[in-house]
Amino acid sequence: VTTRVAACQLALSVGAVAANRAAARAAIEQAARAGGRLAVLPELTPSGYVFAGAAEARALAEPLTGPTVGEWIELARRHDMVIVGGLCELDETGAVRNSSVLVDPGGLRAVYRKAHLWHDEQDCFVPGAAPPPVVDTAVGRIGLLICYDSEFPEWVRLPALAGAEILAISTNWPAETGDGDGAAAGVPAGERHHLVVNVQAAAYVNKVFVAVADRCGTERGVSWVGGTTIIGPDGYPLAGPVRADRSAVLMADCDVRLARDKRVGPRNDIHADRRTDLY
Amino acid sequence: VTTRVAACQLALSVGAVAANRAAARAAIEQAARAGGRLAVLPELTPSGYVFAGAAEARALAEPLTGPTVGEWIELARRHDMVIVGGLCELDETGAVRNSSVLVDPGGLRAVYRKAHLWHDEQDCFVPGAAPPPVVDTAVGRIGLLICYDSEFPEWVRLPALAGAEILAISTNWPAETGDGDGAAAGVPAGERHHLVVNVQAAAYVNKVFVAVADRCGTERGVSWVGGTTIIGPDGYPLAGPVRADRSAVLMADCDVRLARDKRVGPRNDIHADRRTDLY
Repeated sequence: VTTRVAACQLALSVGAVAANRAAARAAIEQAARAGGRLAVLPELTPSGYVFAGAAEARALAEPLTGPTVGEWIELARRHDMVIVGGLCELDETGAVRNSSVLVDPGGLRAVYRKAHLWHDEQDCFVPGAAPPPVVDTAVGRIGLLICYDSEFPEWVRLPALAGAEILAISTNWPAETGDGDGAAAGVPAGERHHLVVNVQAAAYVNKVFVAVADRCGTERGVSWVGGTTIIGPDGYPLAGPVRADRSAVLMADCDVRLARDKRVGPRNDIHADRRTDLY
Repeated sequence: VTTRVAACQLALSVGAVAANRAAARAAIEQAARAGGRLAVLPELTPSGYVFAGAAEARALAEPLTGPTVGEWIELARRHDMVIVGGLCELDETGAVRNSSVLVDPGGLRAVYRKAHLWHDEQDCFVPGAAPPPVVDTAVGRIGLLICYDSEFPEWVRLPALAGAEILAISTNWPAETGDGDGAAAGVPAGERHHLVVNVQAAAYVNKVFVAVADRCGTERGVSWVGGTTIIGPDGYPLAGPVRADRSAVLMADCDVRLARDKRVGPRNDIHADRRTDLY
């Protein structure tokens, strides 16, 4: 019941699809060599993030039957792993989505379409309207979220209440000005970035593991928080946050049984104590 | 529009009502001398916390017309302040409540009755069923919450959506074993206590100020997190957390206008972006 989880911080470039896929593949293989059974990749891994506009996003979109998901399934089979990663999806209706998928040796198990769109994503993507899926895998029950979704506690609650033991959050957290690598204008000295703090709290109030995969490098002038982290159900990091402008494959052993027990004291259960009569 | 806020960490003892009231009064007076316009006191300030059982809680309960609220109103008038503090309340029906009140020079403005009861509080108190009040005062719109309430993001949302600019959280955060003053069994080295992290996230996802007043000292073998903190709407502490076993009156200047603006980027608003069609 202990799952070795890998959270992969990657340097990606918008439009450099082959190189981006190769970076993801290398990280998955590194995770596999280290015994990882679940690998989490960033948001929009093959395409990159900083699109010039909707036309560029559409040009870089691919269907779930496309080469990225195909390669991830092949890697999942070869290494007997679960892989979660984000991609720019052309869906069955022709809409472009900011999606993440979960694949395992059985193939594509779930797709999630980001419901809360950040900034110019609003020009590029149709937001999702379905709750985050929770997938029962060989290595635990895994819920999917993407980036800004995690800032809405009501939304994080849904997969947690649906039994997720690990929330896999694919993200591209743009750094505020001067906030590239910890020597931060936006982040007070000695403080952990508030987006990392927020996912720590999400783990704690739901007693779930959280694995966040973020970006590094610079893309069209945007740099990233580098907030890749694996957090335990008590809200404390098991690995990371990286908080540096470098690629990284963080590993942590997660006893998923801990996430099935929502007790926070002898007489309290942080899920059962919700006042569902009031909210 | 800048409010100087004081969060008061007090050493209290169960049943030592006169001494507890004196400790609160001294902290309020210290806050007033330092220019504080809002003072936040811990949960169950006059009575203390670790009751032997329901009978002791009832014996220490007092009505809203009792001496504690009376003294706080008198201090609010004398110093032209707003005071928020917790007390063991005997309500108008004879039920015992874990309550907090907001008083200002106009008198008692609001009472809040804790809706999420921790541990043996379940033997002593009738939980509240009304949402946290938000009070329009001379120094800002102030919402009230008590301790374990803050671990339920849905509940924190209610006063934030109702326009609170400052959430005043009266708390008694019992320390886990060995977790008295930062040299903690429960808290990994270098980490901030997860209850403090949680209120930082509550501030950030709602873009509100949060003022937490916690305890110090030891009461019937229970020690406290000492997590008194004042947090800005970006989720970073403006003062504290104290994280030490000592009385403290933390002060911070809070520009409450910052909490009226929920924008988190040029095209995003962390309240308006909620998918109210989905949750």
